[in-house]
Amino acid sequence: MTLTLTSLINSDRLNTTIDQLAAIGKLPKGGVRRIAYSPEDIRARELVRSWMVEAGMTTRIDAAGNLIGTYPGRVAGAPSLVTGSHIDTVPTGGRYDGTLGVLAGIEVVRVLRDNQIQMDHPLEVIVFTDEEGGMIGGKAMSGTAFEEAEYYRRDDGTAIETCLKKVGGDWSQLQTAKRDRSEVVAYVELHVEQGGVLDHQGKEIGVVEGIVGQHRDVVVVKGRPNHAGTTPMDLRQDALVAAAQIVLAVNALAKNTPGQQVATVGALNVFPNAANIVPGLVELTIDMRDIDLANLKQLSAQLMTQLETIAATTQTEITTAPILRTEAVLATPKIQDVIVEICQEKGFSYCHLPSRASHDAQEMGLFTDMGMIFVPSYAGISHAEDEYTSPEQCVQGVEMLLETLLRLDRLYAID
Amino acid sequence: MTLTLTSLINSDRLNTTIDQLAAIGKLPKGGVRRIAYSPEDIRARELVRSWMVEAGMTTRIDAAGNLIGTYPGRVAGAPSLVTGSHIDTVPTGGRYDGTLGVLAGIEVVRVLRDNQIQMDHPLEVIVFTDEEGGMIGGKAMSGTAFEEAEYYRRDDGTAIETCLKKVGGDWSQLQTAKRDRSEVVAYVELHVEQGGVLDHQGKEIGVVEGIVGQHRDVVVVKGRPNHAGTTPMDLRQDALVAAAQIVLAVNALAKNTPGQQVATVGALNVFPNAANIVPGLVELTIDMRDIDLANLKQLSAQLMTQLETIAATTQTEITTAPILRTEAVLATPKIQDVIVEICQEKGFSYCHLPSRASHDAQEMGLFTDMGMIFVPSYAGISHAEDEYTSPEQCVQGVEMLLETLLRLDRLYAID
Repeated sequence: MTLTLTSLINSDRLNTTIDQLAAIGKLPKGGVRRIAYSPEDIRARELVRSWMVEAGMTTRIDAAGNLIGTYPGRVAGAPSLVTGSHIDTVPTGGRYDGTLGVLAGIEVVRVLRDNQIQMDHPLEVIVFTDEEGGMIGGKAMSGTAFEEAEYYRRDDGTAIETCLKKVGGDWSQLQTAKRDRSEVVAYVELHVEQGGVLDHQGKEIGVVEGIVGQHRDVVVVKGRPNHAGTTPMDLRQDALVAAAQIVLAVNALAKNTPGQQVATVGALNVFPNAANIVPGLVELTIDMRDIDLANLKQLSAQLMTQLETIAATTQTEITTAPILRTEAVLATPKIQDVIVEICQEKGFSYCHLPSRASHDAQEMGLFTDMGMIFVPSYAGISHAEDEYTSPEQCVQGVEMLLETLLRLDRLYAID
Repeated sequence: MTLTLTSLINSDRLNTTIDQLAAIGKLPKGGVRRIAYSPEDIRARELVRSWMVEAGMTTRIDAAGNLIGTYPGRVAGAPSLVTGSHIDTVPTGGRYDGTLGVLAGIEVVRVLRDNQIQMDHPLEVIVFTDEEGGMIGGKAMSGTAFEEAEYYRRDDGTAIETCLKKVGGDWSQLQTAKRDRSEVVAYVELHVEQGGVLDHQGKEIGVVEGIVGQHRDVVVVKGRPNHAGTTPMDLRQDALVAAAQIVLAVNALAKNTPGQQVATVGALNVFPNAANIVPGLVELTIDMRDIDLANLKQLSAQLMTQLETIAATTQTEITTAPILRTEAVLATPKIQDVIVEICQEKGFSYCHLPSRASHDAQEMGLFTDMGMIFVPSYAGISHAEDEYTSPEQCVQGVEMLLETLLRLDRLYAID
């Protein structure tokens, strides 16, 4: 039943739903603005829910606002196989990030229903709440959400209680959204890569090894503000000169160390930031990611040593404070093996790669077996209006997802 | 009559007026906020005018709002010897910047009057309008003010017409403030150094060689914004990495080239400036100053070549646009010689140095002979609340100013 079923995936049906969802929060250049809890997000959730129902799923919304569609399995009381992703976007986002994973899941269910097929396990398709913000949907499900409501307050000041209410959740009952291995036997997520590795290497499928761990620090460089005209070069304590050395050290460290790590100074603010004043203070962020946590710690330690040298040579004071530490979450090897096996059978070119972006899968991977399938993003563009994955590539992704779920249904045999 | 007269300078009288003026717009930490045209500036002008009158001067306000006090000379119709400076401050300024030059001028007149001495030339003490802003006072006097009122509009939107009216000026008659060599035979300004050269070298007096020329450019670095997690290091076009190289190149150029030039990146803005996005755009300013204009041009040219290399190696686009070009204005050699001669006779330690900050003297130097005398700023601090020049150093400055004016009175003999 397996290999032929994927030929029944309806490309028009899939890509029509992608178009219809992209129309909600559509931006002038083809992108999407559908921020979590916004009217657009709420409309999009309602549309997706209606598609789930049409596809033969029952739906519910948990306390974290996660929209969960369930297509029944053959074996009563069996734990679920789960797929899904998110439909909220960054303020200027693309059409595929998150959305593809959700709509692929629904297309999988449609194919099963069209062919009157049930798996042994129930199949759930989940729309996770606010992936682009605090990831409260995934975190509530893994039981790692912060208890402080303050943490999830929106930039515009809206409380999380209000936000969750808008999408059918209930902050006071958040712990009821927590799930475990006895309910979810495995989770597989299809997502666009959001990076340029597949596109650059001409590969059709990415077999995700896991989601990288992340170290994010804020660095404050304190020099001495002074008159840019009257202060001779050798009497300066220029905080920006020190900060520039940090930017280059961070870049060189990631570039020149063997491995797959990335490191970025993305935000940098100068004070007082006037053309005629030697900068007295600079604040900047350092973001380092790697799937190899030992390597990540080692790079962080090397960088700290370099910061000490920079402080000494520039006569500035450099302090750092961690603002984010996440552990790498590895994809389950046997799920990776299944994905590879299918690629080989179908003749899809593929490579293994880590996901350097966060995904709902990293929360699911904390309590159950997890796998991720990537399809290429054109030129690696993502979180931007011109994010693009072709209709054919989207269909290839659904083929991989369907086939992976079918094989996992057998792999995770029910006693 | 000359050398003994300086012993009659009244230190208490001088320093009391410095204290009284510092009380207008006083800040908590001992600094002063007396922005041009503000109520504080207007009250301070009125107080200074009353001191001028008490010292035996006639006063007038020209169309640019410059407050001009005149102590008569012996020779009818002779052109004036002029001194002065400004009493407006930056938003968080010190007690001495500008103020010392004005109050020193008044103290000189008091000493002359106390001893019933007149010079051949009339002696003018000028409070120039808005030195810290558009320098309209000095520019109107040299005839280099911009004709567009828009140029001098305040940050809060107040039109220059309104501003000048507040201090007794008249924008529509601005050209009447213009003066020439036939009216002003020479200009000498006493000012705190605002840099750390004298304090660092332990010198009592600075013999100013001129006011440096200035090149200020805005630089735009265009890279490609991208996901800081998913974009491999070798596929990035990081605008901040390029900008950091520019910051260091600017610093190294000024530091490693023989000469007295300074160069600063004081303002730098990153877009979109988020921890998790590879910077796509950076805007920064480059400010270079030197009294040797040929050197300044050469350094600018060298820098442009380096920017091309940085653009090529970082795969970014770097464009530059000039936002300020001022020529160096040299102090008249024979006035410098007079200042040196007096230092030697009085046993004051001294050195020659360029002024790397702007002063009203640079406008006066455009149409008449000009000299400047610096006294030390503690630790080179200026444009800050803790700017400090001791009462003894202030008196030494007045001694130098008085003696210089007396000698110039003879040097510029009246036919």
